[in-house]
Amino acid sequence: MTNPVIAEVTRGDIVESRHRGAFAVVDRSGHVLAAEGGIAAAVYPRSAVKAFQCLPVIESGAADHFGFTDEEIALCCASHNGEPEHVRAARAMLAKAGNAENLYECGAHWPSLEEARFALVRHGESCAAVHNNCSGKHAGMLALARHLKADPRGYVQPGHPVQKAIARRIGEICDVDLSQQPIGIDGCSVPTWAIPLKNLALGFARFSDPDNAAARRIIAAVRAHPFMVAGTGDFDTLVMEAVPRLFVKTGAEGVYCACVPHAGIGIALKIDDGASRASEVAIASVLAGLDAWAPDEKAALERFRHHDLANWRKIGVGEVRGLRL
Amino acid sequence: MTNPVIAEVTRGDIVESRHRGAFAVVDRSGHVLAAEGGIAAAVYPRSAVKAFQCLPVIESGAADHFGFTDEEIALCCASHNGEPEHVRAARAMLAKAGNAENLYECGAHWPSLEEARFALVRHGESCAAVHNNCSGKHAGMLALARHLKADPRGYVQPGHPVQKAIARRIGEICDVDLSQQPIGIDGCSVPTWAIPLKNLALGFARFSDPDNAAARRIIAAVRAHPFMVAGTGDFDTLVMEAVPRLFVKTGAEGVYCACVPHAGIGIALKIDDGASRASEVAIASVLAGLDAWAPDEKAALERFRHHDLANWRKIGVGEVRGLRL
Repeated sequence: MTNPVIAEVTRGDIVESRHRGAFAVVDRSGHVLAAEGGIAAAVYPRSAVKAFQCLPVIESGAADHFGFTDEEIALCCASHNGEPEHVRAARAMLAKAGNAENLYECGAHWPSLEEARFALVRHGESCAAVHNNCSGKHAGMLALARHLKADPRGYVQPGHPVQKAIARRIGEICDVDLSQQPIGIDGCSVPTWAIPLKNLALGFARFSDPDNAAARRIIAAVRAHPFMVAGTGDFDTLVMEAVPRLFVKTGAEGVYCACVPHAGIGIALKIDDGASRASEVAIASVLAGLDAWAPDEKAALERFRHHDLANWRKIGVGEVRGLRL
Repeated sequence: MTNPVIAEVTRGDIVESRHRGAFAVVDRSGHVLAAEGGIAAAVYPRSAVKAFQCLPVIESGAADHFGFTDEEIALCCASHNGEPEHVRAARAMLAKAGNAENLYECGAHWPSLEEARFALVRHGESCAAVHNNCSGKHAGMLALARHLKADPRGYVQPGHPVQKAIARRIGEICDVDLSQQPIGIDGCSVPTWAIPLKNLALGFARFSDPDNAAARRIIAAVRAHPFMVAGTGDFDTLVMEAVPRLFVKTGAEGVYCACVPHAGIGIALKIDDGASRASEVAIASVLAGLDAWAPDEKAALERFRHHDLANWRKIGVGEVRGLRL
């Protein structure tokens, strides 16, 4: 099926570009409350399930054993900017679990935030794995490997005890047998399993279950430290700062997932073409449309539904906006 | 109408993202030789018509009056990387026409190429308008203003003699009355007029007319200096180095235009969602499908139809590919 246009970009008099996509809003029993497009199609969730990948780190006892703080647990769920606070916390997690930086198998890239990137360049430094936006997640995975008494080397491989524990947990919460699903390699080298959008939304609804102690702890950690999951100027951080009752997480290639714990709702969204500029305004549009908010929360979400586009001289040229279908 | 998928991105077992779009292949008489999708829809060509914006710079006599070299004429048509060669040539053009750098109205941004960007940061320098990828085009516009004896200030405004001359010339070559078309402000603050894809392709077919002396000169300049129109690692530069009988130019938001002078063919393509990763492989796919090439040219274009995607550890994770419909 052809997914509908759920976000668009205007310039001057007309719509310049259009983004198609699909989303599902699901409750804890799997009932679909709202949807557009093909929600049975399996999509790679990419970084949007970092919170699920963190569940075994908590549930195994690794987080307690190594004394991870709430900030560090939030960093486990992060696609961060590589700002000094993120790098410090990742290094602290490695040290607590007795892991050296050279055990990282996520690969190196420059910090996503220009200021952090230029600061390294100015000091003649290069980028390292610890600056990778996934370095918190990988510090958690390495800690889990230690706690499971497994060789940390190869912890990104699908057959390693760490990834097997994660696959089991993601499969459970999303009610999908991942061994039967398509598999890809993520940017940070860990497996990413394709999951039907509807099941991904179900997973996030279940993640909001108050009886799920590990999930409750992760949500509380992220709520207390929204800066740690993204950083300066990032959509995840800004939205959760503005609406603390909300949990959202972006994934590469236009994926956005969210849960609304007080309403028991999970949401999964994918932009067909993979654009994050579209997934951001589209998820805000879906969230703003839910009957779950106080007026100030709704107003905040409406603000995130669109943003002005300015050119190099800061002249307004158009806008990016999520559509209400 | 819903445009077809003309490029896709795979990861592991499946297609992760899909890009829809439209294109037209047109000859000099306006006959449509091949097309997909809605080619009557008007799209902003953005930087894809820099060569048309350069026509009045040549035809007015400004380029000769100020002694612009072929390299400088190529830079007039460029979306360049801000590499030292580009910056030097832009400054030379300004100096030849007696224009100071502070007359630039394109706005400043960091050089697109990381190496050039980091070199500035290392030297404690900031970015300036001359690093803007459009600084060659703007140097040409400023020279045109001088040659027309117009006040250079405000040369980016639609009512300025420079932009009026450009609008007239683009309208002529594309057979469109631009005063009736939607208008937007480009990233570099000049007007961009929306043009039906079919007319944009016609414009590029006519641009390849050997009787069009100014176009012939521009094509020869770009052919001789493909580095000047883009730079290290850029698609335009790489494709024209590999297939010198071809003229291609990218535009923001997923636009690609091309002409094949020896075959009298013009092509215009727009990706609905604005992704350049898709417009690149899609235009290569369209070009490779033309019956206009020697075997080595065809083989080169086929190579540009797809490229491997690697992650931060350089592990192959999938590919981006243009589709043959």
